[in-house]
Amino acid sequence: MLFSKLNINNDEPIYIQIKNHISTMISKGLIPNNSKLPSSRELSQLLGVSRNSVMLAYEELKSDGFIYSISGKGTFASSNNISPNSTWQLNWDSFENEYSKTANKLDIVKNEITWQNNLISFKSISPNGELFDIDELKKSFLNRISLEGHKLLNYGYAQGYKPLIDYLHDYMSLKGVDTSNKEILITNGFTEGLDLILSSFMNRGDYIICENPTHNTAIKVMKAMGINIIGVDINKDGLDFNMLKEKLKLYKDKIKFAYITPSYHNPTGVVMPPESRSIFYNLMKTYNIAVIEDGFNEELLYSSSHIFPICSLDNLNNGVVYIGSFSKILFPGLRIGWILADKNVVSKLESVKRCRNIHVSFLDQGILYDYLSNGCFEKYIKKIRKFYGDKFNFAYDCVKKYIPCNYILGDGGLHLFIKLKNIDSRKLLLRCYDKGVIFMPGDVFYVDDKVYDTLRLGFSRISIEDIEKGIKIIGDTIRELSN
Amino acid sequence: MLFSKLNINNDEPIYIQIKNHISTMISKGLIPNNSKLPSSRELSQLLGVSRNSVMLAYEELKSDGFIYSISGKGTFASSNNISPNSTWQLNWDSFENEYSKTANKLDIVKNEITWQNNLISFKSISPNGELFDIDELKKSFLNRISLEGHKLLNYGYAQGYKPLIDYLHDYMSLKGVDTSNKEILITNGFTEGLDLILSSFMNRGDYIICENPTHNTAIKVMKAMGINIIGVDINKDGLDFNMLKEKLKLYKDKIKFAYITPSYHNPTGVVMPPESRSIFYNLMKTYNIAVIEDGFNEELLYSSSHIFPICSLDNLNNGVVYIGSFSKILFPGLRIGWILADKNVVSKLESVKRCRNIHVSFLDQGILYDYLSNGCFEKYIKKIRKFYGDKFNFAYDCVKKYIPCNYILGDGGLHLFIKLKNIDSRKLLLRCYDKGVIFMPGDVFYVDDKVYDTLRLGFSRISIEDIEKGIKIIGDTIRELSN
Repeated sequence: MLFSKLNINNDEPIYIQIKNHISTMISKGLIPNNSKLPSSRELSQLLGVSRNSVMLAYEELKSDGFIYSISGKGTFASSNNISPNSTWQLNWDSFENEYSKTANKLDIVKNEITWQNNLISFKSISPNGELFDIDELKKSFLNRISLEGHKLLNYGYAQGYKPLIDYLHDYMSLKGVDTSNKEILITNGFTEGLDLILSSFMNRGDYIICENPTHNTAIKVMKAMGINIIGVDINKDGLDFNMLKEKLKLYKDKIKFAYITPSYHNPTGVVMPPESRSIFYNLMKTYNIAVIEDGFNEELLYSSSHIFPICSLDNLNNGVVYIGSFSKILFPGLRIGWILADKNVVSKLESVKRCRNIHVSFLDQGILYDYLSNGCFEKYIKKIRKFYGDKFNFAYDCVKKYIPCNYILGDGGLHLFIKLKNIDSRKLLLRCYDKGVIFMPGDVFYVDDKVYDTLRLGFSRISIEDIEKGIKIIGDTIRELSN
Repeated sequence: MLFSKLNINNDEPIYIQIKNHISTMISKGLIPNNSKLPSSRELSQLLGVSRNSVMLAYEELKSDGFIYSISGKGTFASSNNISPNSTWQLNWDSFENEYSKTANKLDIVKNEITWQNNLISFKSISPNGELFDIDELKKSFLNRISLEGHKLLNYGYAQGYKPLIDYLHDYMSLKGVDTSNKEILITNGFTEGLDLILSSFMNRGDYIICENPTHNTAIKVMKAMGINIIGVDINKDGLDFNMLKEKLKLYKDKIKFAYITPSYHNPTGVVMPPESRSIFYNLMKTYNIAVIEDGFNEELLYSSSHIFPICSLDNLNNGVVYIGSFSKILFPGLRIGWILADKNVVSKLESVKRCRNIHVSFLDQGILYDYLSNGCFEKYIKKIRKFYGDKFNFAYDCVKKYIPCNYILGDGGLHLFIKLKNIDSRKLLLRCYDKGVIFMPGDVFYVDDKVYDTLRLGFSRISIEDIEKGIKIIGDTIRELSN
């Protein structure tokens, strides 16, 4: 294309014509600075001229400063000696909309102290990768690829990989969910699940009710969309049902959705008892509020036996949208979660998913399906329940021993939540940081930012020794601040 | 948790207490229908009672119809004999917002004839999976996993996998782009790239200018967001610059973005010559309109030599946002694309990406990086250029031979675009469908739906024999309709 306008004529020497064409293209910026030119052999073939003519042209262009050569790499354009065009600087800040501004402002990764070497960090609640069974993952990859071949690598379906969908149907049935009127959509993890639901059914200014504190990413997603959040306190006695009822009366027909994490709630670690799940579900039904149930860490039940998601109470109703994810325990790097909801709801979400990014990686879905269905998952779950359970108990004991506080929350999971005695957790964080320890200040989990004296400790990736060392440092620093 | 409220006392027989607790839980719906109960062994351990007491309780519950057993599988709750709660059917249609409604209405997969066995389908422009080098992909997987281990499987970074980002920096430099003031964000394919940019910088009612016809998914993404689209004709002479200038004058300060596909434009297959790219860029600069350049299929240059993206003209300016993707030629199932833009722009988009779905699968990014950087990609590109180039020429000749039309568009790529002589392509499609041939009617590519007599033929996955057979059928059917 760059040479399609060069028609060699008989009036001038060929090398001159080539040289003039290239120097003009470079001057106009059509051949960019430092971009590679065809080799003399390629160009002579393309133009149907002798290689000598091209070499001669390149020699002259070199001495004129239009091109340069790097031996073994090729010939490149140089437009450094050409006066540049006038500059053009768009004011992107003025283009930016409210959605992006909020997503940036509430981006914890950008705005909080990040992990560095030698820090003991209680910030993360991501799983300990050393527990992953990589050999089994390799087997799953090789097995799936040999069974499915290039089908896993080409375009798939927005709803997801059928065998994985079927597996999750059964998986949800075992949790006591009647899936006969429901469907599943595979998403890029929990976060995309929540984003798709709110993007499809909420408008700016709509109302949602949720636990306060709650998952900071959920707060960010909601606030970025301009959704009004009504928080209901959750503390050592669980969700404050009196407050919930008051808010329901107060906002009545305004509230469209409730967002709730009944198991190992983030950040408090509280598990909602079966009776409360039933009361909650019936309240939402009475007020006609759709429930978004975050199945977060449901798999990590250390001590107690069966407990059923709120979704299992929905039977053939359509009031609950369940979001599942293994990301807090298994391969979060693969970004696979799912939505289970009424068929009509999933059909709408499927088109929105396709509009957003076509579908989730079919390769990853295939690998995960293979891993889940060949029995590895059950073994893995047993292993991590023991591993994290022991860590949980150890961390809990350390907190009781070292940290003066009002109360400790957490029925299990990968984290503990601590209510201090009027200590500003931001001040505490800065002092601890100087001593090599960081954690997540609790304010980021509150819908209104007003609670300043709580913190979350994630322990999944920290050694037993560092858990004790770190918690002791936090406790000592609290005592310094109290004096 | 389900049994935490059962405190065995000495007043009643133990099996009666167990039986009453379970029947109450089932009646209240706290143990869902068909959900699995603990085995008698598990429950006796949990409660600290004899296994006999549990077995006796289970026997009575069975005869009362509260539970049933499946041999080898376990014991399950049955609430079929309990009067169900009053039903609850939320009206989700009334919850649905404009975004979801439009994404659903314009969802081609839902609304167009889909592929079935034995159909010759010219609808798809996805790559032919049989060309994928699966052995090399396996090697890349195994190599990357052994180098990176569980790091590739745990949470990564929203911007992307660093080695892949670095590779793409170099890759874009080879295309003549000065990347020194620019950054790269890895996205779930082209579609997410476009969605992120528009989601971050556009509001409902804002204006965008683009080629007409253009990529139907882009139209869908824009319309779902309520963006006003200004179309500029593209036909056998390329983009209509007179029309472009008129529209620029008419809408002047209203237009924020231009969306353009300079190479193998979808659906027309037209490649914009270097001189036109420069004129286009300078016009956008004059009117202060940010350019979104769709790098679609740029790799598929069959015949001509080097051509540089519009982005290469931007130098140290910040006016062009380039979206790249290998999905039309390599592993679309992995959903990996990238945005190259001004550092400030990418920083904003990074937070929006994190807010949407955290990041793209790190496993997939790792595999793709390994594959790209070990030299497989160059070999693959040479192979597919020849393969698709031959197919393109063959399909072009068939269309010339069999299809009466006004003109054929396409400089290469995986498709051809045909302007018929006043034949309704929807009517044609229905007739061809009866004869076992389908294609993409052109109206879906027009921003205003008004052009009815065009069609796109994708040929990447069809055999040479079927290309000829299918095109002949389309031609014959046109003749029938003309009579």
